[in-house]
Amino acid sequence: MTRARRWLLRRRPDGVPQAEDFSLETFDPPSPRDGQIRVETLFVGVDPGMRARLSEAESYAPPIPLGGPVEGANLARVTESRAERFQPGDLVTSALGWQEAGVLDARAAQKVPPELISGLPVQTALGIFGIPGLTAYFGLLALGQPAEGETVVVSSAAGAVGSLVGQIAKLKGARAVGIAGGMEKCRWLTEEFGFDAAVDYKAGSLGEALAAATSDGIDVYFDNVGGPMLDTVLNRMNRGGRIVISGQVAEYNKPEGARHGISDTLPFITHRLRMEGLVVFDYAREFPTALAELSTWTRAGRLSIKEDLREGIEALPGAFADLFTGRTMGRCLVRIAG
Amino acid sequence: MTRARRWLLRRRPDGVPQAEDFSLETFDPPSPRDGQIRVETLFVGVDPGMRARLSEAESYAPPIPLGGPVEGANLARVTESRAERFQPGDLVTSALGWQEAGVLDARAAQKVPPELISGLPVQTALGIFGIPGLTAYFGLLALGQPAEGETVVVSSAAGAVGSLVGQIAKLKGARAVGIAGGMEKCRWLTEEFGFDAAVDYKAGSLGEALAAATSDGIDVYFDNVGGPMLDTVLNRMNRGGRIVISGQVAEYNKPEGARHGISDTLPFITHRLRMEGLVVFDYAREFPTALAELSTWTRAGRLSIKEDLREGIEALPGAFADLFTGRTMGRCLVRIAG
Repeated sequence: MTRARRWLLRRRPDGVPQAEDFSLETFDPPSPRDGQIRVETLFVGVDPGMRARLSEAESYAPPIPLGGPVEGANLARVTESRAERFQPGDLVTSALGWQEAGVLDARAAQKVPPELISGLPVQTALGIFGIPGLTAYFGLLALGQPAEGETVVVSSAAGAVGSLVGQIAKLKGARAVGIAGGMEKCRWLTEEFGFDAAVDYKAGSLGEALAAATSDGIDVYFDNVGGPMLDTVLNRMNRGGRIVISGQVAEYNKPEGARHGISDTLPFITHRLRMEGLVVFDYAREFPTALAELSTWTRAGRLSIKEDLREGIEALPGAFADLFTGRTMGRCLVRIAG
Repeated sequence: MTRARRWLLRRRPDGVPQAEDFSLETFDPPSPRDGQIRVETLFVGVDPGMRARLSEAESYAPPIPLGGPVEGANLARVTESRAERFQPGDLVTSALGWQEAGVLDARAAQKVPPELISGLPVQTALGIFGIPGLTAYFGLLALGQPAEGETVVVSSAAGAVGSLVGQIAKLKGARAVGIAGGMEKCRWLTEEFGFDAAVDYKAGSLGEALAAATSDGIDVYFDNVGGPMLDTVLNRMNRGGRIVISGQVAEYNKPEGARHGISDTLPFITHRLRMEGLVVFDYAREFPTALAELSTWTRAGRLSIKEDLREGIEALPGAFADLFTGRTMGRCLVRIAG
C-alpha cells in the first residue's frame, strides 16, 4: 500500500474558485473492506457544474463538506477488489474526484465496458461517453427535442458539452449555432465541428451578432451559461421554443440574491416558451441506450471532442478556475497517471 | 339602425391603466356585408391579459392600434345576419370588446351552443365556459399536470381563472392552495371554493405563510401574477415541479427593462423545474372536449364562479383598472344590455 495525494476543500469559494480554496494532502488510503475496491486514478474530469457543490446551499447533490475531499468525475483502474463485480485491472468511473488513489464502495463505481472504449483513448469514458456526452445527449434530445431544420443555439459552445450539443444537433438535421468567447474558439466550432455559425460574445453586441446568425429565430437554446446572455437569447426565441437549463456558469459563482436570473417572463407567454432544468443522473436508466448511440456516432467519425489536457494532480485547482474565465477549450481533463 | 357607444384607446397606458387612457365615442355601426353579422352586446368580460395588447410591443396578439376600439371578450346577441351560420337571436362570443353594438365577420364569432348554457346564466359563456374556464382547464391539465395528492398553488386565486384552477385541482385529487390579497378573499377561497389553504400576501411574510401552507412543498404553480411572488414560490417548488405562466399582472404594467423577471435560475437545475407559457387559443381545437367536461362539473355543482358584476359601458375602464389593484373578486363582468 502506498501513500497518495488528494485535494481537500479548505474554504468555500467566494466567486471564481481560487487555488487557496483547496489544499493538497498526502494520505494513506485505507484497505478495502468487503464490498469495496481500491483504485488508482488515471484521469480527473473538470466540470463547471461541480462548482455548485462547493457552496453551502443544497444543489443537485449535497454540498461537499468543508475539509472533505473534493469529489468529481474520475476514471481509475482497480488495483485491489473485495467486490464480486470487479477485478484488478478493470477501468471504473466514479465521483472519487481529485485524488490519486482511493477506496470506494463498489456500488459507487461504474465499470467501463472494455468494448465501449476499445480502440479509443481511455479518457473517452470521461468525455463523449461520460457526463459531458450524456448531458449533451439527454439535454438536447429529451428536453430540447430539435426537429429537422430547426435552429439550436448552445452557449459555452467550445466546452465539452457545448461542442457535443452542436454536433448532435447537426446529426439530427437541425441548424447549430454556437456562442463562444474569442475568434479562435468560434473558428474552431465552424471549421472543426461543423457548426453552421458561431457568435463571439466578446466581440461587440451579442444581440446583433446573434440576430445575424439566427435570421429564422431560435427554436432550442441549450444553456450552459445563464446570466444576461440568457436574456439576449430569450428575445430571439421562436414560438414554442425550448430552453434547456443545463449549466449556469455565469451564476454559480454568485451568492444567492446576487444572481442575474431572467429579466422578463413575458416572452414565455408571448412565444409559448418552455424552460426546463437538467440533471443528467435522472436519466441513468437510459444511459446504456445513449452510450450505444454515442458510440455509433463516434466510431463513424461523426462525433468528436477536443481535449484540453493538463498534467498532474497539482494542476487541478487551476484547471477548475480556468473553466470560469474562458481559458479552457473542449473537454478539460487532468491526467493523474497512465 | 341605432347609434352605439364604444371605448377607444386614447393613449397607451403608463403603468396601471387610467380612465384617461380611454375615450367613449358614439358611432354608427355599419350595415353588415355578406359574411358579416350585426350584434348587440350583452356582457363584456374584463381580463387582465388584455393589458398586454394595450402596449406597443407585440404580445400573444398584435397591439390594439392607438385610437382604435378596445377589443376584449364580448357576449352578444345577433340582431342581423348576412352569414349562413347565424340567425338573429343567436348568442355569440367574440373579441368585439368594449362596444354596445357592432358588426363583425362571422368567422370571428363563435356561436354559444344553446344546450351549453341551458339553465345557466348567459354570462357563463364568458366565465366557466369562456376564456377564464378554458385557461384554467388547459393551463392546469395540459401544462401543470397535477397528480393525485400533489400540491397546486395558484396566484390571483380569487380571480376568475385562479378560483377555477383551485376547484379543478381539487376535482383531480390534488391539494389546492391559493394566494390572494386580503382576509376576505382568503376566507372565501377556503369556505366557498374548497381550497385547502389560502395565503394572504398582504399580511406579513409571504414566504413564511406559504411555507406553513405547503409543508410538503409545491408541485404545480399556476402563475397569474409574476414578479417577486414568482421568486418566493420557486423557492418552495419540489423536484420535478411545473410552473404555468398564464398571466403576469405584476409585470404587464411595467415597461420592458423594468420588469422583475426571475431572480435565480439555479433552482431550475437543483429541482428540475419546468416552466411554460400558456396562450389558451393554442388549444382551440380541444375547446369542445374541455367545454363538455367543464359543463359536466358545473351541472354537478362541483365548479362555480363568483361574479363581480358592474353595470353599463361607462364602468369599463374603472373595472379594468381594478383588476390590477386587487379591487375585483371573481369574474369581472360589465353588463351592457339584457
